[in-house]
Amino acid sequence: MLKNIQQLAGGVTAPKGFTAAGVCAGLKKAKKDLALIVSETVAAAAAVYTRNLVQAAPLKVTRENLNSGHARAIVVNSGNANACTGEQGYQDAREMAAVTARAVGCEPWQVVVASTGVIGVNLPMDKIKEGIKKAASNLTVQGSSEAAAAIMTTDTFLKEIAIQLPLGGTLVTIGGIAKGSGMIHPNMGTMLCFLTTDAAIEAHELERMLKAVVDRTFNMVTVDGDTSTNDMVVVLANGLADNEPFTIEEQALFQAALEHVCRQLARMIARDGEGATKLLTVLVQGAATEIDARQVALAVAGSNLVKSAIFGCDANWGRILCAAGYSGAAIDPERVAIYLESVAGCEQVAAAGQPLPFNEDKAKAILREEEVIIKVNLNQGNAEATAWGCDLTYDYVKINASYRS
Amino acid sequence: MLKNIQQLAGGVTAPKGFTAAGVCAGLKKAKKDLALIVSETVAAAAAVYTRNLVQAAPLKVTRENLNSGHARAIVVNSGNANACTGEQGYQDAREMAAVTARAVGCEPWQVVVASTGVIGVNLPMDKIKEGIKKAASNLTVQGSSEAAAAIMTTDTFLKEIAIQLPLGGTLVTIGGIAKGSGMIHPNMGTMLCFLTTDAAIEAHELERMLKAVVDRTFNMVTVDGDTSTNDMVVVLANGLADNEPFTIEEQALFQAALEHVCRQLARMIARDGEGATKLLTVLVQGAATEIDARQVALAVAGSNLVKSAIFGCDANWGRILCAAGYSGAAIDPERVAIYLESVAGCEQVAAAGQPLPFNEDKAKAILREEEVIIKVNLNQGNAEATAWGCDLTYDYVKINASYRS
Repeated sequence: MLKNIQQLAGGVTAPKGFTAAGVCAGLKKAKKDLALIVSETVAAAAAVYTRNLVQAAPLKVTRENLNSGHARAIVVNSGNANACTGEQGYQDAREMAAVTARAVGCEPWQVVVASTGVIGVNLPMDKIKEGIKKAASNLTVQGSSEAAAAIMTTDTFLKEIAIQLPLGGTLVTIGGIAKGSGMIHPNMGTMLCFLTTDAAIEAHELERMLKAVVDRTFNMVTVDGDTSTNDMVVVLANGLADNEPFTIEEQALFQAALEHVCRQLARMIARDGEGATKLLTVLVQGAATEIDARQVALAVAGSNLVKSAIFGCDANWGRILCAAGYSGAAIDPERVAIYLESVAGCEQVAAAGQPLPFNEDKAKAILREEEVIIKVNLNQGNAEATAWGCDLTYDYVKINASYRS
Repeated sequence: MLKNIQQLAGGVTAPKGFTAAGVCAGLKKAKKDLALIVSETVAAAAAVYTRNLVQAAPLKVTRENLNSGHARAIVVNSGNANACTGEQGYQDAREMAAVTARAVGCEPWQVVVASTGVIGVNLPMDKIKEGIKKAASNLTVQGSSEAAAAIMTTDTFLKEIAIQLPLGGTLVTIGGIAKGSGMIHPNMGTMLCFLTTDAAIEAHELERMLKAVVDRTFNMVTVDGDTSTNDMVVVLANGLADNEPFTIEEQALFQAALEHVCRQLARMIARDGEGATKLLTVLVQGAATEIDARQVALAVAGSNLVKSAIFGCDANWGRILCAAGYSGAAIDPERVAIYLESVAGCEQVAAAGQPLPFNEDKAKAILREEEVIIKVNLNQGNAEATAWGCDLTYDYVKINASYRS
């Protein structure tokens, strides 16, 4: 579907009219901890938030502000989540928006506020305020990587991407930065993603697309990827590409491009699981419904036993079937086929839910690669889904990794 | 409620008329791997099984056999789960019952069959058959510990208990052995528990009680404690205590005694999590319903972030509230109070969902103990529940354990 897509450098500052900065505000020791992303014109804006009943103060403020469907700036701090901080926390988040608005020259309700870090401690507002001013005076069109660095917590590498494609009679650019938790399941830390585009698109269209895209990307990074108190995915579209209004087909293309960007960032988050050596992709096919397919894919990708077997290069496929069995989907174990795949090849290890004689050496070679795909065919229908995770490499896993031998 | 209860040695062979043995059948290297428990008379029998859609062959056979409500013997092997093994696996499980029946002198349908170990590999039936014969010739009234050793997989200590109490005009004894998975969440390995009693009690009464007891004990050991392909809790009651039929009050007492036995075994399983240094008990009070209370307790006890904070003796209570928030229960975050407790004292760390100034040194001292209790009061009603888990001590956790500092 996406034929004319081109990868660019520059992340969130690749689209026209966006600047960014990342500075040390002093919340973390000698590390960047405050990011600012600004659009030179008012942008259509949409967001998807955590489903946790406990929601951090910045989420409340952002939700209120984005009721307008528009924004000019995004301010983010790491090192402190401003969650479970009561009325003071709410006032602090509002003040972050107000200080940012003054510093960049917009209205407080045009500011998206996000935080990540420790829960239950009030923000050091003096540092935050100084940091915002410093960031505002450092905004540049090369600032994406610094902003990406400033939102990191236990991440081990920057998560940044930008693409360009012809749409609506011109070239449209989409950029993004993200942070994952360094933890095994992202539900345990905050997942943040900020997307920018110069496409001209209505806020309500943007929101519809973002919801659909997040369900197929960030919500498919292991189990419960949506349950921290601070998770947030935000997109700003400032229209500076000056495209014609998208046709129905172009809307679909734009959504596919947005999904491409989010999928790449989601894969980076999965790959950056603490101590991970491998990206694990679980592709479930032949499901009766897409919901079934997602449940099975997430259960397999989220199973500590499957993940430790992948680490140990052990084709212990029984664990895959076991995870499918407890996923909640109405599978028929006696129809399930399982395949292991990587650049080293593909090997079927189970058919009709039963052992298949397979080449152990080839299976080991497949699992030894840096990107491993587990393919599960439920043979019950035509729906499919993909989930992403990583292997478990830690000491406690060693026992499980060699459990079969 | 249980005033006259007395702890005994002897596990499953403490009740009258039970013998047991554990032998090396050769499925594991130089370790006991086959257990036999036999009642000298036909016993009323009840069982609770895994809810995983993928169910191992021995479960199918046991389920069929226990339709009668009676049993004489339990045969268990470790080292191979006989799961995902197709028709051959089913025939093998039936043969285990038949061989056991011949060896101990009963009918094949009077035998409970259980297996634990690797999935997807057929049983080495020659070794199993020889092992059963060997075990049958080794049955003794001191055999409980050997049987408990033979069902272990990654367990680091024997799980065995027996109690006695006056009931129905005589002394009634209840014994049990169990194995947990050594994994963090028991859903990833098999949990097996075998209970014996010399009480005279009807099979359907026994089943009703066992279901209620398992929901409050084994199903409360971290999240998804019931989802391996082989999980099974079985109780045999042979009536040799010769008690009068229980009154309603005595039935309740017997159930409480059964719950006491299962709770102790559940705590042992939690305490034996791989690498665990602490038993973590989560007590949720003030819930609107018992189901809410259970969901919150399991979410908190199962949270890797909470567990690593407990390991690091870090009173990072925000993670506790966060877990309550994604538990699925309809909590009101702004009512939640949180307490940390151990033999070193009790300290309230949050009230109304917000930080409370607390003594960090005292909190650290509390968390440094071997048994730590997290008490969460939802302040929404009168229901409560308890869940058990352990801390996370592995390398990968170190990063999270000190996340707040």
